[in-house]
Amino acid sequence: MEVRSKWNFEGKEEAKKASACTIRSYLDTLNESINKNDTTRSVIPLSHGDPSGFPSFRTSKVSENALLDALQSAQYNGYPRNLDIFHASRSIAEYLSRDYPYKLSPNDVLVTAGAKQAIDVLITALAVPGANILLPRPGYPAYEALATFNRLEMRHYDLLPEQDWEVDIDGLEALADDRTVAMVVINPGNPCGNVYKREHLKKIAEAASKLGMLVISDEAYGHLVFGSNPFVPMGVFGEIAPILTIGSISKRWLVPGWRFGWIVMCDPNDILKKHGVAESIKNYHNISVGPPTLTLGAITRILAETPEDFYSNTINLLRKAAGICYAGLREIPCFTPYKSQGSMFLMAKLNMPLLEGIDNDMEFCTRLAREESVIVLPGEALGLKNWVRVTFAVEISALEDGLSRIKAFCFRNAKQQ
Amino acid sequence: MEVRSKWNFEGKEEAKKASACTIRSYLDTLNESINKNDTTRSVIPLSHGDPSGFPSFRTSKVSENALLDALQSAQYNGYPRNLDIFHASRSIAEYLSRDYPYKLSPNDVLVTAGAKQAIDVLITALAVPGANILLPRPGYPAYEALATFNRLEMRHYDLLPEQDWEVDIDGLEALADDRTVAMVVINPGNPCGNVYKREHLKKIAEAASKLGMLVISDEAYGHLVFGSNPFVPMGVFGEIAPILTIGSISKRWLVPGWRFGWIVMCDPNDILKKHGVAESIKNYHNISVGPPTLTLGAITRILAETPEDFYSNTINLLRKAAGICYAGLREIPCFTPYKSQGSMFLMAKLNMPLLEGIDNDMEFCTRLAREESVIVLPGEALGLKNWVRVTFAVEISALEDGLSRIKAFCFRNAKQQ
Repeated sequence: MEVRSKWNFEGKEEAKKASACTIRSYLDTLNESINKNDTTRSVIPLSHGDPSGFPSFRTSKVSENALLDALQSAQYNGYPRNLDIFHASRSIAEYLSRDYPYKLSPNDVLVTAGAKQAIDVLITALAVPGANILLPRPGYPAYEALATFNRLEMRHYDLLPEQDWEVDIDGLEALADDRTVAMVVINPGNPCGNVYKREHLKKIAEAASKLGMLVISDEAYGHLVFGSNPFVPMGVFGEIAPILTIGSISKRWLVPGWRFGWIVMCDPNDILKKHGVAESIKNYHNISVGPPTLTLGAITRILAETPEDFYSNTINLLRKAAGICYAGLREIPCFTPYKSQGSMFLMAKLNMPLLEGIDNDMEFCTRLAREESVIVLPGEALGLKNWVRVTFAVEISALEDGLSRIKAFCFRNAKQQ
Repeated sequence: MEVRSKWNFEGKEEAKKASACTIRSYLDTLNESINKNDTTRSVIPLSHGDPSGFPSFRTSKVSENALLDALQSAQYNGYPRNLDIFHASRSIAEYLSRDYPYKLSPNDVLVTAGAKQAIDVLITALAVPGANILLPRPGYPAYEALATFNRLEMRHYDLLPEQDWEVDIDGLEALADDRTVAMVVINPGNPCGNVYKREHLKKIAEAASKLGMLVISDEAYGHLVFGSNPFVPMGVFGEIAPILTIGSISKRWLVPGWRFGWIVMCDPNDILKKHGVAESIKNYHNISVGPPTLTLGAITRILAETPEDFYSNTINLLRKAAGICYAGLREIPCFTPYKSQGSMFLMAKLNMPLLEGIDNDMEFCTRLAREESVIVLPGEALGLKNWVRVTFAVEISALEDGLSRIKAFCFRNAKQQ
């Protein structure tokens, strides 16, 4: 078969770059570094926010039973009926409205296959020619991957480690221009564990309003907070600027594999509708893959009937683990960890001059994987060179084991003073 | 808040057009036409290939138990592990290899959230600037929606109703040029119910080879055949031209809501690899949403352990229903139905001159929905004006009820001779 020049798929550079910047791509590289001969120790994954396989982080019986009943009813094996989607959307609107000063309608909600599809739909829909978007640094690389793929120009604003990872609002304002369509805020923060105060969120909304842009508020880790600041959803400030909220059951209910999330248009002034943004998002949502119907059939019960003690147990466990992680890393001279108040992560700075023969974060993580079978994520993946993201959302015993291996690794590779 | 001209989302015309051409968009319009006051009769959906809600078409106990066990193990609530993906890919490779003259490897397989995501990944990956793709007419509009959205030029070749809906190969060859990257074949056919003979498939592969293009073989309805031709997977001819096979558990196992499918590269000569096509597809697959982990955990048992009598019961039921549907429509003068040999559909031509006050297929379907609460899909949605697609994959009693309502509607609206 003769193939002509037309198959110039090397031209698909965006897909290549986008794929390379995903967390999965970094984790695959690190997993390949694991020493397969180290059979006496298990691999400790302090690298991604998914503790669902650990016994202490098993989802609630309510969620399991809701899905079980959906399965056994045989009524959710098919494509979703419009009525199923309506019921799910109404449940999500009611669940979120508890924390809002106005009432969301089911029409404000789009159900998605997890937060990842929500990001896909929003970034793809917003990628109009010439537009740009403001992303946090450090951030969550799914945004970078999808913006790259869709040729949406990215500009990165800083989160300030010495101010509890607040948004550098002056820097943000300096980046925006009349082609800036949106900014992304991740709160509770991945990767920083920030939980923004109400006043700070209000300032962000005011900046967005001043700059004439909408806010994508990624609340995948919504309600997973264990510090002094309560979780405040950004949509509370929907009267100031239109907010597109991303949420999911993946983290609070510990079921990322169930693939269920949402986009909610928190826009009581209907700015998104008036400017065709809402329609554009809905159009792309229409041609995208939706969530599994079984989860759709279970969602009303999952949101309404999960007992408070399931939530508080998770929070207590995360608080304890975050404390152990911070304290453990503090004891290691080559780390400067920053306290986490929410999500499943903290960021720690690597003090490179204290390390011998390790030149950067990627090398640190690769060698840690090879020598200690512990995986942490290099800051490079998140836009912050020579930092690492560490998740503490694992079984406490695994966390303690992981920290002691990291400690051994760092002391072994410390520069002689 | 002042919003500037930058929010020109009316410019996202592709998304609007793409959304409007989906089957869901047509069904939503028809559902709105249903007379809500007609409370004595239920709506008969002869419009889409999803009988999973009918008792006779309930999926097998094996599938339900496999998913149940995955759920109760609590090992598939999280993101998929690489090993889970490998096991699933290996199972799919083994399942398909039974019918192939060569052995597929797990590396040839990409798991997806149903056939729809498989289409999304392939069309998006193949949409390089200036390229075009050959699509069947009538066809399955998800291809049109995604090609439109990705600005991939479409050219439509004809399926020939008088030749069992075979591909018009001369016409196909006349459409292709040196920017034609691929053609799509749907077999068993949606919407036509065609099941191509081995020799015809070989001719298609030879044409693809001659034209220097790959073949996307959509086998979502694979094995659902009940006529004289056996199901032959296109991948059998992978030595002639590279074949990208799309498959899914949605139809054969009657679980479209479980969202599980695959892309398989049937390309023993590694042409896709050599030209960067395989990598481009994998890159886009990497940044896309995957299947629910629960289904991924159940797939090996679903593929390996489903008993033969489940498959044969479905086939027998479809054969019987297809016969009733064809015979029923034959009795109605305004229809010329074409026999189906596979999938869940048949196409029927509307003899417009025999109808009074109905000008086209969309009007026919809208009025049928309003007056008889029966939904069939207008051929307009599939590229064939003044035809309709009718599914017979419903409970037999519902099919008979639907046919008698269609008959009453047609006789009531027949032109006086």
